[in-house]
Amino acid sequence: METFSKENCIYEGKAKKLFSTGQEGTLLVEYKNSFTAFDGKKKAQMEGKGRLNNLISSEIFEYLRQKSIPHHFIRKIDETHQLVKNVKILPIEVVVRNITTGSICKRLGIKEGMHLPRPLVEFYYKDDALGDPIITEDHIILFGWGTEKELAIMKDLTLKVNDAMTSYFKDKNIVLVDFKLEFGKDAEGNVILADEISPDTCRFWDSSTGDRLDKDRFRKDLGNVLEAYEEILKRITG
Amino acid sequence: METFSKENCIYEGKAKKLFSTGQEGTLLVEYKNSFTAFDGKKKAQMEGKGRLNNLISSEIFEYLRQKSIPHHFIRKIDETHQLVKNVKILPIEVVVRNITTGSICKRLGIKEGMHLPRPLVEFYYKDDALGDPIITEDHIILFGWGTEKELAIMKDLTLKVNDAMTSYFKDKNIVLVDFKLEFGKDAEGNVILADEISPDTCRFWDSSTGDRLDKDRFRKDLGNVLEAYEEILKRITG
Repeated sequence: METFSKENCIYEGKAKKLFSTGQEGTLLVEYKNSFTAFDGKKKAQMEGKGRLNNLISSEIFEYLRQKSIPHHFIRKIDETHQLVKNVKILPIEVVVRNITTGSICKRLGIKEGMHLPRPLVEFYYKDDALGDPIITEDHIILFGWGTEKELAIMKDLTLKVNDAMTSYFKDKNIVLVDFKLEFGKDAEGNVILADEISPDTCRFWDSSTGDRLDKDRFRKDLGNVLEAYEEILKRITG
Repeated sequence: METFSKENCIYEGKAKKLFSTGQEGTLLVEYKNSFTAFDGKKKAQMEGKGRLNNLISSEIFEYLRQKSIPHHFIRKIDETHQLVKNVKILPIEVVVRNITTGSICKRLGIKEGMHLPRPLVEFYYKDDALGDPIITEDHIILFGWGTEKELAIMKDLTLKVNDAMTSYFKDKNIVLVDFKLEFGKDAEGNVILADEISPDTCRFWDSSTGDRLDKDRFRKDLGNVLEAYEEILKRITG
């Protein structure tokens, strides 16, 4: 086991803390019990949430490893911690939509629940003060948020992740509606998948009932938030 | 001269009115004396403004005809009217930026006055109620606001208009900073340039002094609004 000291917190985000470990090139991630939504305007703490997202995210990263998607996840350490590669996160959120719902419907006046003929990939500039505005590929290149090559890799990996996860969740009677990915550059400059993949970052609908099994239960006060996360964990760990 | 009746107003926008003419496939455009900015929140009337935009827009469309850019303009009728082809306007505003200023700086936290290494083309969905949100090429295709082919034509024509206008205005000691175009489909389904090209839809900076010679004088209460429009007309009509 690595020697890491919890004093060495190098970053605290809304849902996770990062710690330096004794080992060069690796970081320890701690999943927190906090919920936030609407640019941090809505907040809550729920005991057990960090554990659920850590276990779900670890399981999905293990699956994506089998599918040869390069990512930062090394292994689960305990119930709320995982060891990851230290990467420099690109300032871009990549969103994939298979069915329209949420912000896109409000922003563009689009009907809810449209099944798109192909996945829609969108980019958002990670900047809390600006409200994470939507950006185009040209913005990314012209303002230096990524290179042509990095953008091409991100798009390719994103569509591969969508394909792999859509079929993975379909087998578990879950529709993968949309999700958000983040990418980072490792020490060698490779662009790899980073951050987390959980009901905080994906919309999951029960294939039979349409029940929401993700953070929309928190956003929309639907109740049984952690029960839904627990249900996702149960279905993916069989 | 066509027979047209002013009673036949078929559309009134913020800056122009459209009238049916006796002739199939043509419309009469009347340029109004009204200024609006910030989604119509700021308004004013200025006598002579319609004349200036009609004369400037007519002159620029004549120039673009020489450059083989297909557009809806047929000819100037009088001081405030022009005859145009009747087209079905696509619900998209195409914006080209050569230098960063205005909304992009605020929305994306970009520095003012950056000279871009190549023109930045952006698309906005024409919908007042939604505030004309920025959209991507994928939104246009997936939500049916234009086809792949129409989008390709719009992009190609937009860059040609930018090249032609940049050099046209450079000769008149004016920097073409950015501008907005609209496109329409004619009876044969051809995508052609439409709307107007004027200090309402372009940012023009004096090459020597940097003086604003466009609607920013109205937006920012810089004064001498019509004098700036008059100066543009003077320089392009030599």
